[in-house]
Amino acid sequence: MSCVRAVQVKNIKLVVESLSEHLKRERENSVKASDGDFLSISGVRVSAVKSGIKVRDRLDLVVFEIDEKSSVAGVFTLNKFCAAPVQIAKENLLRGNARYFLVNTGYANAGTGKLGLKAAKNCCSKLAEITKVAESSVIPFSTGVIGEHLPVDKVLSALPAAINGFSEVDWLSAARGIMTTDTQPKVISRTIRSKNGSIRVTGVAKGSGMIRPDMATMLAFVFCDARVAPTDLKVLLAKLVEGSFNRITVDGDTSTNDSCMLVATGASGIEIVGDRELEDGLGVFFTDLAIALIRDAEGATKFVTVSVDGGENSEECLRVAYAISESPLVKTAMFASDPNWGRILAVIGRSDIEDLDIDAVEIMLGGTRVVCDGGVDPSYTETLGQMEMAEKEVAVKISLGRGTAKETVFTSDLSVDYVKINADYRS
Amino acid sequence: MSCVRAVQVKNIKLVVESLSEHLKRERENSVKASDGDFLSISGVRVSAVKSGIKVRDRLDLVVFEIDEKSSVAGVFTLNKFCAAPVQIAKENLLRGNARYFLVNTGYANAGTGKLGLKAAKNCCSKLAEITKVAESSVIPFSTGVIGEHLPVDKVLSALPAAINGFSEVDWLSAARGIMTTDTQPKVISRTIRSKNGSIRVTGVAKGSGMIRPDMATMLAFVFCDARVAPTDLKVLLAKLVEGSFNRITVDGDTSTNDSCMLVATGASGIEIVGDRELEDGLGVFFTDLAIALIRDAEGATKFVTVSVDGGENSEECLRVAYAISESPLVKTAMFASDPNWGRILAVIGRSDIEDLDIDAVEIMLGGTRVVCDGGVDPSYTETLGQMEMAEKEVAVKISLGRGTAKETVFTSDLSVDYVKINADYRS
Repeated sequence: MSCVRAVQVKNIKLVVESLSEHLKRERENSVKASDGDFLSISGVRVSAVKSGIKVRDRLDLVVFEIDEKSSVAGVFTLNKFCAAPVQIAKENLLRGNARYFLVNTGYANAGTGKLGLKAAKNCCSKLAEITKVAESSVIPFSTGVIGEHLPVDKVLSALPAAINGFSEVDWLSAARGIMTTDTQPKVISRTIRSKNGSIRVTGVAKGSGMIRPDMATMLAFVFCDARVAPTDLKVLLAKLVEGSFNRITVDGDTSTNDSCMLVATGASGIEIVGDRELEDGLGVFFTDLAIALIRDAEGATKFVTVSVDGGENSEECLRVAYAISESPLVKTAMFASDPNWGRILAVIGRSDIEDLDIDAVEIMLGGTRVVCDGGVDPSYTETLGQMEMAEKEVAVKISLGRGTAKETVFTSDLSVDYVKINADYRS
Repeated sequence: MSCVRAVQVKNIKLVVESLSEHLKRERENSVKASDGDFLSISGVRVSAVKSGIKVRDRLDLVVFEIDEKSSVAGVFTLNKFCAAPVQIAKENLLRGNARYFLVNTGYANAGTGKLGLKAAKNCCSKLAEITKVAESSVIPFSTGVIGEHLPVDKVLSALPAAINGFSEVDWLSAARGIMTTDTQPKVISRTIRSKNGSIRVTGVAKGSGMIRPDMATMLAFVFCDARVAPTDLKVLLAKLVEGSFNRITVDGDTSTNDSCMLVATGASGIEIVGDRELEDGLGVFFTDLAIALIRDAEGATKFVTVSVDGGENSEECLRVAYAISESPLVKTAMFASDPNWGRILAVIGRSDIEDLDIDAVEIMLGGTRVVCDGGVDPSYTETLGQMEMAEKEVAVKISLGRGTAKETVFTSDLSVDYVKINADYRS
């Protein structure tokens, strides 16, 4: 029943608190797929095979096939050492004739120099040859170990089987086929309605460590049957990513391979642009997919929402929210369910906010106010703090008391298992 | 024999690589104190007692007495939530009549609002009364748990015993008396010579977690018998700290209580200012004291030197060096002795260096070149990398290949014990 766990985003009360009433309604109204039944998107087919790239007997090569009339947009990592496939994906995407996404796990094909570029091109070229499209119609993606070379032969040998295995509904295999240290596949499938009609959206994502997306997450592929012009889709995707994948962090480490793709096949005939309900519904969809990564973060035992309001601008709210979300001391206290709020206070103090009036700062743990007037709230007790921290979902709320800007970042705790996973396993 | 471990800074070969030839000679020429024999500094006396502030039967209250004619300078944390004692210390120091440093562990007296300020003032006032000096002559310091109130009565009760216990040589007790999660006391004592004469310097420091000093470390007190005017001492201290305590990080978390004090009693009659050999010798002294903190970092199993050269300016070198030093993925790979250099490459790529030419970047692990021309060095082998990483001391060297600026940061690894220490123990 892992598909159930994959599709559901449970216990979202804390998250929802940071979303507008409108968005809440959108999420509640959206139709969720039942167990294992993910919505097909007319014009999109998926296939996942075992190519033995790094490990035997594991789904590790995924191909998405997209109908010709679709619009395709992508955002990619800002990491300067962006991987070979990312470089080629950006280039090919500019041609505007994308027809296939080719994804491998095992090796990231990053830090591999000219040989890496050649390897990625060879894979694209072979797929183009079999499917009789231009080489630039294939958009490549890789994820896994950085710095080791891709075994191109294994990919090439597995491509024919992949092409023969296309399905309209087997999104779960695609989600499994792109996993690395993820413990669960992440798929969300939903119908989003507005007065103008409804659209179907299905998306898969992967990522568990080296997660602090900067433009996109490790890998996310979202498909919908709405009608959107390619230039509009690009603008829309940038906005969607900014509010979702660009608001999560596991360890502050931006990957070399982050990519997020949005495809609109147009099959429904419904236009998104200008339809507030559909746009907001997509916003919730993207946030839920990003949150699914945090719920499965490496070694995570807690889901932590860090909200900062009362800032002079978004930038300073984000600075504080990320500093808290990435502080090893705050994250280990979360792991221990220890209401060690002094560590949060110390992080705010080091966040380089000009002229911060510390007497105006408030810190809340869930519904409990801990800090005000520059020190501990007189009504705060350790027992109250412990009750808040005992939850699996912890909300940290900061008010800076100097403006109206607000931002929210989602993160996980720092557990003994995080260290073990990253010390024992080369990912 | 813990005093031996405290005074020695062993195996400094990697560190020394990043220092100039001149500084190396200085360090080698400096006279080190033998086991347990720390140099007295004429005009300075120390005392450490057990006041039972938080734990029974533990040295937790330290008083330093300084002769009237001494110059005293201090630098303090830039954390906006700076502790009550830090606020008072800065204020009192401006009066220019400092005679006593009063240090307690157990509670940091930070995030304690107006009550915290009152508590710190009460302690200063009592010590001033007993020793018949102005209240502003007492400079207070606290370290320990943030947000809980200082048990003032225990401090006041212990002060008479502290005053009766002054010693010129018992630096080891002072170093023990300021420890929190430190596992070893840190004292360095040295005679620094120049053609103009020699000066004696003894310093103690503490700090093991919440270490990314910004102006100073958790707590460091350095005393010398040189003659320096107060205004010159302030400038000198800022320079010394910039090259030492401001170049270390354990977890990126700048404390609320960081303070570093430098006292020059003038007893030797030797002037420092303008004497290059003495200034450089002091620079090495400060670096060694800062390094002693990193060697005893929470849960640390490795001592890591991250050097970045070829930068356009110091700022970008530091940005890269700190990003590597604070990356959980790099630090867990260090813990595992895994030459997972892809993680280092990914960090450089996300360090926001404008127009970085990745083909010009080189990464070295110790003496082994790993990355050049945008990918793995063809001569690199996993075995070579493993040999470098098996060492207790690991040097990561980055060349950005775009300028002449260089910087070095010292750090530790991220171990299972780091998480356990910070999850199990409220510090």
